[in-house]
Amino acid sequence: MLKRAALALTLAVAATGASANPELLRLQRDPNQWVIPNGNYASQRYSELNQINRENVNQLRPAWQFSTGVLRGHEGGPLVVGEVMYIHTPFPNRVFALDLNTPGRVLWRYEPTQDPSVIGVMCCDTVNRGPAYADGKIILSQADTTLVALDARTGREVWKVKNGDAGKGETSTMSPLVVGDKVLVGISGGEFGIRGHITAYNLADGKQAWRAYSVGPDNEILFDPQKTTAMGQPVGENSSLRTWEGDQWKIGGGATWGWISYDPELNLIYYGSGNPGTWNPVQRPGDNKWSMTIFARDANTGMARWVYQMTPHDEWDYDGVNEMILADNIQVGNQRVAKALVHFDRNGFGYTLNRENGQLLVAQKFDPAVNWATHVDMETGRPQVVREFSTRQGGEDQNTQNICPAALGSKDQQPAAYSPRSGMFYVPTNHVCMDYEPFRVSYTAGQPYIGATLSMYPPKGSDHMGNFIAWDAGQGRIVWSKPERFSVWSGALATAGDIVFYGTLEGYLKAVDLKDGKELFSYRTPSGIIGNVNTFTHKGKQYVAVLSGVGGWAGIGMAAGLQGESEGLGAVGAYKSLSDYTQLGGVLTVFALPN
Amino acid sequence: MLKRAALALTLAVAATGASANPELLRLQRDPNQWVIPNGNYASQRYSELNQINRENVNQLRPAWQFSTGVLRGHEGGPLVVGEVMYIHTPFPNRVFALDLNTPGRVLWRYEPTQDPSVIGVMCCDTVNRGPAYADGKIILSQADTTLVALDARTGREVWKVKNGDAGKGETSTMSPLVVGDKVLVGISGGEFGIRGHITAYNLADGKQAWRAYSVGPDNEILFDPQKTTAMGQPVGENSSLRTWEGDQWKIGGGATWGWISYDPELNLIYYGSGNPGTWNPVQRPGDNKWSMTIFARDANTGMARWVYQMTPHDEWDYDGVNEMILADNIQVGNQRVAKALVHFDRNGFGYTLNRENGQLLVAQKFDPAVNWATHVDMETGRPQVVREFSTRQGGEDQNTQNICPAALGSKDQQPAAYSPRSGMFYVPTNHVCMDYEPFRVSYTAGQPYIGATLSMYPPKGSDHMGNFIAWDAGQGRIVWSKPERFSVWSGALATAGDIVFYGTLEGYLKAVDLKDGKELFSYRTPSGIIGNVNTFTHKGKQYVAVLSGVGGWAGIGMAAGLQGESEGLGAVGAYKSLSDYTQLGGVLTVFALPN
Ligand SMILES: O=C(O)c1cc(C(=O)O)c2c(n1)C(=O)C(=O)c1cc(C(=O)O)[nH]c1-2
Ligand SMILES: O=C(O)c1cc(C(=O)O)c2c(n1)C(=O)C(=O)c1cc(C(=O)O)[nH]c1-2
Repeated sequence: MLKRAALALTLAVAATGASANPELLRLQRDPNQWVIPNGNYASQRYSELNQINRENVNQLRPAWQFSTGVLRGHEGGPLVVGEVMYIHTPFPNRVFALDLNTPGRVLWRYEPTQDPSVIGVMCCDTVNRGPAYADGKIILSQADTTLVALDARTGREVWKVKNGDAGKGETSTMSPLVVGDKVLVGISGGEFGIRGHITAYNLADGKQAWRAYSVGPDNEILFDPQKTTAMGQPVGENSSLRTWEGDQWKIGGGATWGWISYDPELNLIYYGSGNPGTWNPVQRPGDNKWSMTIFARDANTGMARWVYQMTPHDEWDYDGVNEMILADNIQVGNQRVAKALVHFDRNGFGYTLNRENGQLLVAQKFDPAVNWATHVDMETGRPQVVREFSTRQGGEDQNTQNICPAALGSKDQQPAAYSPRSGMFYVPTNHVCMDYEPFRVSYTAGQPYIGATLSMYPPKGSDHMGNFIAWDAGQGRIVWSKPERFSVWSGALATAGDIVFYGTLEGYLKAVDLKDGKELFSYRTPSGIIGNVNTFTHKGKQYVAVLSGVGGWAGIGMAAGLQGESEGLGAVGAYKSLSDYTQLGGVLTVFALPN
Repeated sequence: MLKRAALALTLAVAATGASANPELLRLQRDPNQWVIPNGNYASQRYSELNQINRENVNQLRPAWQFSTGVLRGHEGGPLVVGEVMYIHTPFPNRVFALDLNTPGRVLWRYEPTQDPSVIGVMCCDTVNRGPAYADGKIILSQADTTLVALDARTGREVWKVKNGDAGKGETSTMSPLVVGDKVLVGISGGEFGIRGHITAYNLADGKQAWRAYSVGPDNEILFDPQKTTAMGQPVGENSSLRTWEGDQWKIGGGATWGWISYDPELNLIYYGSGNPGTWNPVQRPGDNKWSMTIFARDANTGMARWVYQMTPHDEWDYDGVNEMILADNIQVGNQRVAKALVHFDRNGFGYTLNRENGQLLVAQKFDPAVNWATHVDMETGRPQVVREFSTRQGGEDQNTQNICPAALGSKDQQPAAYSPRSGMFYVPTNHVCMDYEPFRVSYTAGQPYIGATLSMYPPKGSDHMGNFIAWDAGQGRIVWSKPERFSVWSGALATAGDIVFYGTLEGYLKAVDLKDGKELFSYRTPSGIIGNVNTFTHKGKQYVAVLSGVGGWAGIGMAAGLQGESEGLGAVGAYKSLSDYTQLGGVLTVFALPN
């Protein structure tokens, strides 16, 4: 089955002439390895492995562990290529190649020298979501925006290139994606008035192939006014410029710090852009396009095929960067959508789109607490904002209260999983609200360009701050929801064992039953989990692996040693009791069934 | 059985009028708890628990974990008092009280504010061997020599007192011992020309009760020239001063940074003193008494009952501070020694003494590689030094090569275990040699006062740097020896399950068969283990717990980020390949059998 699918795809690719990386296509279909941070180009975080399953997962236990020697938030997860596991750390962005034949044996390690001043311009902890593998290379995007290709066998640098300027607040936390002969990488800095872009570098030598900004003139955002569409219509000329006052787009944000997906048949990449700069909406009238937008771009040229802006004129910092999950044959009403894109946005809506043309099919709340908008108008694609929760409405220096979700969204960077067996999505979510008070701010390169004071807390009457949910993307409804004390900040994994794994901020790795969310397994790892759960086999035996090490935006209080309730862009207060459960760490745990 | 023994002792104590702490005596006899760092006053590191045993230990597995949020060497181990576990960290010396009913739940945490400049005057990593418990208090000796008593229920400070002056290089790494109504604590700084002492503070209020220096005038070392004996003879007047030139004793070292044991019947405490300052023997002629000495002192007054100097006029930095294990009814030849003291010294000799009077019974090499002395003269107690390996012989700036053991000894601070069931001792050892080149140095307060350049390596022809051995202290011979790649820097635990636990520098927790050293269990914890293995029960189930987190002198290269072969007082080169196996960490792992 698996083999046949792979073959079919390879042929399709050959037919369209798209340059998908044949090695990567092959490797990502081998469930024994884990070669792409989110499992495959479709970002499904699904594995065909089923040795560990509903019946025996309660016997799962740690098999071996490896401390990375670095504290603060450990996002991303291990890659497994052949008999080697690659793990990485937050700043200073170490990479270790570990020999699976002698668990914990370090084959090589890489530790870049980076100016530590970059720490001060990273908004949400010193995280890194992990390197990419392709073509015998490990490609890492360092905090200081250095993109480096390492020889996967020796750890030696093959090439490196600077993708941005940390002096201006441009940093990097994301996982590059290799497509064909190119490495695609985004940039962070939405809180520093940067202008986001996705850039393609040649895998062979690191030479820049193309760059597509999120905001700006058509030739810089790589839009064809006639061919690039939004809601089925050509965007027309200056589709971005028209939505900004004067030169504001130059510091307009739209950072691209999330995940990239890819459809080899369509040869399109999919990703989202972040918040427009500043967080004070009063200062930047207009829709601020194309911040908060899903982009479908041609992988070879970067030209935009279609776009969809989820949160025009953001007033809440609902970055649109969360992963785009590509799933096939989703039943929406009586329409069977061959090629869907499913996206759980920070703004609390779960979107289903036709990924061939960007048609909006479903937009429903995936947390019932969401109150900033009543619904999304399916004709215009625009959310119907509730006046009471508009932070621009009252003007500057007015505190708007009880907005749900909080700025970190009903879901943040933690990637969801999709099981083709159940056809459902398994989503780590936040259940947090906020007060938001915009204030006037002026831009200085390299200085925070934020302009709002936030404070966060659980929804009124709620005693928990997260849920792990199953979502029906065709119907736009929650199938089951499992409450968690804190936000679930870890990436999920669904397997053919009909279980889903995820981690909690207290540090538990959990496995639940696909069908009803019943907890089947739970183990307390050394530190809070904001990493993503991956699986692989070695010598025929299935393993599950995860990094623990609390941090990220939710854990910023502990990670950066902040105490004030509204510090850490408003997150410190909400999560302050986290330190009663866990402390900083940085440990890989590899789980297995007993022999 | 256990109960009867406890009762007998309590009566004996009452009879001699000694003020052993009755609560501590009772608690340390309860195998369900672990209330003294080395298990009991006798430093036996033995537990009567046998749920985990030779037959089932292979099924042992991590039950839960807790990252301390601190990197560098984690020495010592968890205390368990009732349903609360207390763990501690290296500098900044955090203490956590964890609720065993909700594993990992932090009841309270304590983090002292200490001047970080103390890090620079700690010779051998920022380690701490753990607090003491007594009388509802947790007593911690911080790096900066602050001795603090915390309310065990709330973590609030009850009292604190400064035991030394970090500005002069006085620091602390050791575990205080509570005896009766006093807290006993030593001091580190042998590499900074300090003058070591043991000091008793009142448990109730921290007021100083007595202080006994290692070197100096009789009234400061608390010697009675007539009643204090060495090798069965009164020491006479100025027994220390006579062995130093001029005022050199004032910067004479003899730090007291190791373990303290206690015999409640005799009301004597036992501990050893460290190296004389400087490491350049040419500069300090004489025996340099009472450095490198075992002391037996009255617990109430501090007066010395007897002393035994193991390495007069040290030329190798063989600190005599390793733990004194008190064992009863040891058969030495045809003599049955009711009250023995067994000590594995850095100098490579395993000593058995009569702890009532200091009589030397056995002194044999516990690593066959030991070459600096041929034997110990049983009449005089003096080692017979091999001229070729005397570092003074060639004078200053002469490199003496291939001395075994290296300065860190055939064993360092890592405590051994004693099983009353087998009557044998289980000893984590180093198998390392060195080159040693003394040079002239002058004393400046707070500056290193070392005066030798060292480099370390495995013994010629040897491919490993450690052994875990079983030792017969009556016969002075190795019963079995299990080689390890690196020195075994972790404290052992023997149990009534007839197994012995220890950790390795790569990070494995191992369990071996008491009778032959066969490895029965091994688990790779997150980081190298230099902590001590402890055991306890909770709700009737046995657990084994250990801190991992590589460091200490052996791990100083990684801990302090040193690269040069002879940096870290000579240790960096020998252990440089350690980073191919493990990285820094700080994680508690609690093991249990499956339910
Ligand atoms: O606008 C940006 O450039 C930017 C960057 C990042 C980042 O790179 O981690 C985050 C965010 N924004 C952000 O809004 C956010 O919620 C967030 C959470 C996290 C995290 O790793 O936990 N990073 C980021
Ligand atoms: O002379 C001293 O004051 C002193 C202190 C310490 C210490 O406090 O850790 C060590 C030593 N010496 C020492 O010689 C030594 O081998 C050593 C090893 C370790 C360790 O924790 O690994 N500490 C120390």
